[in-house]
Amino acid sequence: MKLRVKDMDIATGDIQIVILNQHDANELDLHPMDRLVVKRNGRQTIAILDIAESPKAVPRGQLGMFEETIDALRVKQGDSVTITPAEKPESLKYIKKKLDGKHLQPKELATIVQDTVDNKLTDIELTSFVTASYTRGMNMQEIAALTKAMASTGQTLHFNKYPVIDVHSIGGVPGNRTTMLIVPILVAAGCIVPKTSSRAITSPAGTADTMEVLCPVSLPINKLKKVIQEVGGFIIWGGSVNLAPADDRIIRIEHPLSIDAEGQMLASIMAKKASVGTTHLLMEIPIGPGTKVKDKKQAKHLSKHFSELGNLLGIKVKTTITDGSQPIGNGIGPILEARDVIWSLKCNECAPQDLVKKSIWMAGVLLEYSGKARKGQGQATAKRLLTTGAAYGAMTRIVEAQGGKIPSSLQPAKYTYTLKANKTGKVKNIPNELIAKTARLAGAPIDPDAGILLHKHCLDNVKQGEPILTIYARGKHKLEYAVKALHNLGGVPIT
Amino acid sequence: MKLRVKDMDIATGDIQIVILNQHDANELDLHPMDRLVVKRNGRQTIAILDIAESPKAVPRGQLGMFEETIDALRVKQGDSVTITPAEKPESLKYIKKKLDGKHLQPKELATIVQDTVDNKLTDIELTSFVTASYTRGMNMQEIAALTKAMASTGQTLHFNKYPVIDVHSIGGVPGNRTTMLIVPILVAAGCIVPKTSSRAITSPAGTADTMEVLCPVSLPINKLKKVIQEVGGFIIWGGSVNLAPADDRIIRIEHPLSIDAEGQMLASIMAKKASVGTTHLLMEIPIGPGTKVKDKKQAKHLSKHFSELGNLLGIKVKTTITDGSQPIGNGIGPILEARDVIWSLKCNECAPQDLVKKSIWMAGVLLEYSGKARKGQGQATAKRLLTTGAAYGAMTRIVEAQGGKIPSSLQPAKYTYTLKANKTGKVKNIPNELIAKTARLAGAPIDPDAGILLHKHCLDNVKQGEPILTIYARGKHKLEYAVKALHNLGGVPIT
Repeated sequence: MKLRVKDMDIATGDIQIVILNQHDANELDLHPMDRLVVKRNGRQTIAILDIAESPKAVPRGQLGMFEETIDALRVKQGDSVTITPAEKPESLKYIKKKLDGKHLQPKELATIVQDTVDNKLTDIELTSFVTASYTRGMNMQEIAALTKAMASTGQTLHFNKYPVIDVHSIGGVPGNRTTMLIVPILVAAGCIVPKTSSRAITSPAGTADTMEVLCPVSLPINKLKKVIQEVGGFIIWGGSVNLAPADDRIIRIEHPLSIDAEGQMLASIMAKKASVGTTHLLMEIPIGPGTKVKDKKQAKHLSKHFSELGNLLGIKVKTTITDGSQPIGNGIGPILEARDVIWSLKCNECAPQDLVKKSIWMAGVLLEYSGKARKGQGQATAKRLLTTGAAYGAMTRIVEAQGGKIPSSLQPAKYTYTLKANKTGKVKNIPNELIAKTARLAGAPIDPDAGILLHKHCLDNVKQGEPILTIYARGKHKLEYAVKALHNLGGVPIT
Repeated sequence: MKLRVKDMDIATGDIQIVILNQHDANELDLHPMDRLVVKRNGRQTIAILDIAESPKAVPRGQLGMFEETIDALRVKQGDSVTITPAEKPESLKYIKKKLDGKHLQPKELATIVQDTVDNKLTDIELTSFVTASYTRGMNMQEIAALTKAMASTGQTLHFNKYPVIDVHSIGGVPGNRTTMLIVPILVAAGCIVPKTSSRAITSPAGTADTMEVLCPVSLPINKLKKVIQEVGGFIIWGGSVNLAPADDRIIRIEHPLSIDAEGQMLASIMAKKASVGTTHLLMEIPIGPGTKVKDKKQAKHLSKHFSELGNLLGIKVKTTITDGSQPIGNGIGPILEARDVIWSLKCNECAPQDLVKKSIWMAGVLLEYSGKARKGQGQATAKRLLTTGAAYGAMTRIVEAQGGKIPSSLQPAKYTYTLKANKTGKVKNIPNELIAKTARLAGAPIDPDAGILLHKHCLDNVKQGEPILTIYARGKHKLEYAVKALHNLGGVPIT
């Protein structure tokens, strides 16, 4: 059928959509969600059909087109196009197979991932895959095939070097910026460390947000290769490179129902490691209230699965279960955390010792694991690289290679509120969720200088009137919101 | 945040959608699929957020609104509105619970159905419910609760009469127009028969399409009550009354992946019966190649579940497993089928005896089941009501009460092709799918006079050159398509 183009002037940033008037759709026996081949002058594309109930949206004889379809066909308002029904993507067979509880072959999973990356699957179809994988489960062969397909459908970085080291934390602990110490220590030891990090989603700062205080974290892929050649490592925002792009669409599906499918989580994390050619990975699994992993049993289970998946992918994975009961370091929020990191690298007396110790320990594990230090010598080597300034030197080179400069001072925002102890005693705990929520309301991470500075940690002695924490915000309102939340959520309990 | 309305001029016919520029969304820490409360002058509505990547679609400071949201708020282009994040609907908790393999309480299912009817759930959320119910399964208590919730969230018809009779076929057999004989026979016997039927989706005619040859099948609900009062029965298109509206959205989700969840199928069918106050139901389950139910085992299983569900709903259900191996009657397509029906009611010599016998038998079962005939007398009663013209009289009253008139003659379309036997022998079979596909390509049901007339049935003797079937179409092209398909699909085999 011939139709005239109506430019709907909407971009979905996602699948291609066209809209028919419902009378035209009835006449052609077409239904919402049907796939159509849209043609114009030998060019063609496949789009998903929506039906317009009113002629106001799309009159009869016209085909409403979203920007993605307009671009794909290079048409404009009023152009004449033809439509014919399209075959359904092959993926649907395999999604149905998973729904019916059967295992999928690597080729079948690769087809689903490719169609996901090509935006060929509707929300209904992709949701069916995600929920079927969740309810039916995936075995390790399926997870490995999914991981490989996710990695190979995106950009990849390969350095032909060995070892290529990575460190990953499952997350949920505010201020846990060990990565920004471990990477320069390892680089100073001669390792290749292409670290992609995330931005905060529900936390006050991700490693990418904190690193961005020092230098740009979005770099083109050829620049990244150069940085590795020159300095041996980087810390960038993973979202700036197109690594395992299928993951973003899958996460978008999991988000509304907080579906936390283990198989997809494993694939999501490991695909990004496979994309950058990781050979040795240290996986940190913090446990505590508010962290992603709830108890030791779940952590051990996950740990086993990471190692098994690593085996199938040719990545050596070591996991470490850590104490995630309270924030790490003193600063919470991009600038306050970056300041902790720089103080630690400079061995300044203000450096938070919990952050320093944990980083030395984890770097030591990786040095031994990757053969850069003899067994039993890892921690001593890591400590030496830190205290001699070698790690600080490596960080300076990394930051400069990424196009930045370590600032001489890092100042938090000017509006402050200090919470003081209402009695003498011991700090019972510093709840992660309280700190995260308060710091976000103060403005972190969008205002990088907003956040919280902890003066006390869990089990510290405190005297009545002594400061426990200070909130920093750019404006009075944000400060008030944060203070209100701090008190409403119960504050910091003292016993 | 205050924003100006941009009228996107699109109707989804479905959930409310608003669109923010991605920079505004980032600043407000909002993500695609988030729910927003949109307010204007004390009026407010809840909409799902989409993000526009280009300022061309939605510039900063503006809120793109689809028609449903524009209507709900009664705003126009350029009006100022405010947005705040909205709570997630309660349903999401219960959908998650089902995803995690737990059983849902009646109140929880009722909440999901209500939110579905109110278009509060996104495709991702509703798909999760549908696929979770499919992969995790539902027990009979859950199916009954779902059925009741689906019925009570739509229009209902209650007549305070007893018995209220219904007959339903699981479908897949072309020409199976028994309903149009059974209903007038039962009405002639003094039963109340409020029959809602479907239109064809993938078949050449649904009962509603065939009935529409004789009279209107879309009637307002108060008119339907009057028709029942006056003549005791009707045959209308179920889509014209808002019975169990949640079902339409669920079917839309099941369609792309051909998910055939038994629980949802049971609920979907029985909710519509509950909506019209059915007390006695005869459920026909035809078995054969191309029918919905594949074998006797599956049919018996389904039969048991229909009875159990009926028990929980207070509807007496009798099931009958029938031979669905070939089309019933001679005509396929609305006018050709209507002609078979009228010939049968008039006891004309052209009446197809397979259709007549099957209808008498099913009507007899229902007469006994509902107490309108003594045990063993049902078939004789039904036959008498047909041969005395009482059933034809009832049909005439039904058709006239619905606003139509039985036409004096029913003529099929003028372009014809007759398939003749290429040898002498026996008709091996008349494949349902071949007949359905060919009749649809000839134009049925959109062209009501298009379709197929069968001159022979399965196992009939045939001489070389004798006609087997005739295709009717309105135009040469449609006829050619149909003939080509008939031959490509293997034609009618003779042994």
